[in-house]
Amino acid sequence: MASTLQRPLLNFSAGPAMMPEQVLRQIQSDIWDVAGTGIGILETSHRGAYWDRRIAECVASVRAAGRVPEDFEILFVQGGATMHFALLPMNFCPPGTSADYLSTGVWARKTLHEARAAHEAGFAGEARCAFDGASCGYDHVPSAEECAFNAEARFLHYCSNNTVYGTLFAEPPAAPSGVRIICDSGSEMFSRPIPWDRVDCVYACVQKNLGVAGTVLVIMRKSFLETARRDLPPILSYLEHAREGSRLNTPATFGIHVTGLMCDWLVSQGGSAEMWKRAQERSGAVYAAIDSSDGFYRGLAKQCCCSHLNPVFFLPTDDLHKTFLGEATLAGLVGLAGHRETGGVRASMYNPFPVAGAHRLAEFMRSFARANAPLGAR
Amino acid sequence: MASTLQRPLLNFSAGPAMMPEQVLRQIQSDIWDVAGTGIGILETSHRGAYWDRRIAECVASVRAAGRVPEDFEILFVQGGATMHFALLPMNFCPPGTSADYLSTGVWARKTLHEARAAHEAGFAGEARCAFDGASCGYDHVPSAEECAFNAEARFLHYCSNNTVYGTLFAEPPAAPSGVRIICDSGSEMFSRPIPWDRVDCVYACVQKNLGVAGTVLVIMRKSFLETARRDLPPILSYLEHAREGSRLNTPATFGIHVTGLMCDWLVSQGGSAEMWKRAQERSGAVYAAIDSSDGFYRGLAKQCCCSHLNPVFFLPTDDLHKTFLGEATLAGLVGLAGHRETGGVRASMYNPFPVAGAHRLAEFMRSFARANAPLGAR
Repeated sequence: MASTLQRPLLNFSAGPAMMPEQVLRQIQSDIWDVAGTGIGILETSHRGAYWDRRIAECVASVRAAGRVPEDFEILFVQGGATMHFALLPMNFCPPGTSADYLSTGVWARKTLHEARAAHEAGFAGEARCAFDGASCGYDHVPSAEECAFNAEARFLHYCSNNTVYGTLFAEPPAAPSGVRIICDSGSEMFSRPIPWDRVDCVYACVQKNLGVAGTVLVIMRKSFLETARRDLPPILSYLEHAREGSRLNTPATFGIHVTGLMCDWLVSQGGSAEMWKRAQERSGAVYAAIDSSDGFYRGLAKQCCCSHLNPVFFLPTDDLHKTFLGEATLAGLVGLAGHRETGGVRASMYNPFPVAGAHRLAEFMRSFARANAPLGAR
Repeated sequence: MASTLQRPLLNFSAGPAMMPEQVLRQIQSDIWDVAGTGIGILETSHRGAYWDRRIAECVASVRAAGRVPEDFEILFVQGGATMHFALLPMNFCPPGTSADYLSTGVWARKTLHEARAAHEAGFAGEARCAFDGASCGYDHVPSAEECAFNAEARFLHYCSNNTVYGTLFAEPPAAPSGVRIICDSGSEMFSRPIPWDRVDCVYACVQKNLGVAGTVLVIMRKSFLETARRDLPPILSYLEHAREGSRLNTPATFGIHVTGLMCDWLVSQGGSAEMWKRAQERSGAVYAAIDSSDGFYRGLAKQCCCSHLNPVFFLPTDDLHKTFLGEATLAGLVGLAGHRETGGVRASMYNPFPVAGAHRLAEFMRSFARANAPLGAR
């Protein structure tokens, strides 16, 4: 709860983002001496006995937090999600084949851009855009009818939560039968239960919900992993990373450790079902403040597809926008400026964000609207 | 000095490795609240005002620590050095060209392996082995006469300090005029001054001397950078990383921050010239203990090429080897087991390792030899 937080600021950063204070305290302790080994977590050999145990624990923590079935491989890799925008087609869509992409926002568009560049460089097959949200200002995610799927695609790639425009897929898109589904869950991993029977790969940079920038979680159906191209340089190959248990080279040990701690925290709080409940309460409070403002605030996403983590909204004028952000900062609500592509306000509230913090923002919004709405609207 | 260390263990881990206690204390504080921003370093937006300043500071700290000339670009990237074993040829040795490699140890061999795989996948030109140290058991680094250089090579790649076999290049190899030189300085960056006029790219994973696993420093002559292939997926392109000031995507903010702290610490201690002095005293103490042992200990590297950071040596028998490691651990000297490829003992002592700690090891070695050498040799 916000009222019990020891630090005064509510950090709405889109990521890297707020972390639970108890996890931060644990990290501080582990920096000096982890698990009574006498050595700090940053200084611990990735080949030593402690790390043999610790990486297995972290995999188990991820499996528990996401209720990940045993037929999915859990990989810790690096480079940010963007690295995997390039590596996924290089592994699973070799030259001469094609894959489908749903372009539903800034990151989905960047994903397509990397995949197309990989194709043009001769590293991968064709990247087809099966839905281009640019024409609707990315205000919703598409129904199956809006998508031009290719039944021969090696995979369909979609981004389940679009942070910049604040839109959400309620469920995985209905790809043609036999087409594998890859989900960029970068901004929402384990913020709600994942329907594992309907996806083949879910991956995420973890700095929003589950850890520290630089670490990437790739969770992949083993039967899909087995279809990967086998002649890649090992460091670019998911098969090789899996074969080496995420220790093909020195892994980002600290990042993996923190993701383990974050997953343990998540489980202790009630798991991803509870995260979904909290996310709905948090975003619901903000959406209610928008809806009850008599048009003072204007939301971006269509009602069908509102993000549970990243509500985006606008104020009536640029001046009010600036005043809003300035007064919010004075009230201890920071990191609320929208992405440079959309402008406006974005309230990113990931797994660790306290529900009471969202109510504090909603209250601030109501009070600001009362003070600043045109007289007739008050 | 070891006697003033607050933690009891001397950690000889080959990396991730020992860090200065004052840096660890700073990190603990920054985890909770960095630079009085009210937000912890792990939770800080990479697009916010603090990070705009901080990443510039970290680049400046690296420049100061390495005395890096202004015509070299400093990049913070990810994936471990191994990622760059693949990306360097993909960027600088396009299909139809070739590059030379000196295979002087485990990591240099892996570098060549990644480059060859990149060639075979059609991502890069040919990777030629200009020297293969396998034939001499990697006991030295080659003179120019031992290398079969190709004057047309796009670059010559070498690993300046070979951690597993404990060998060191005294200076960059004498490549044919016009051939660019890339140096994997992964285990020794800023442990001695770098002759910037004789190299075009120096890169390093930082978890040994300068920070946390996952962060990679690539320092590249701008005129060399400009020769890179331009049609790569952006995330695989050094030009794009440079254009975006190491923020093409979310960077590994924590790792960059720590490298900044480590470089500041290094400068405060007297810079890389002082690091070289300390390294010589540390390794000198261990080599002296080997040399004065009447053959009880046997060094691996030839005298010409002994590493200043990773002395490797053997005991007379497997039993004595095990006893040595066991008694060392009881004496608080941990992480001394050699690499699985060489066996033996490896005493990795990077920049932060206290000089007094090396003397403690040397004393232990002398005492162990006295107690365990055959009677006639005592």
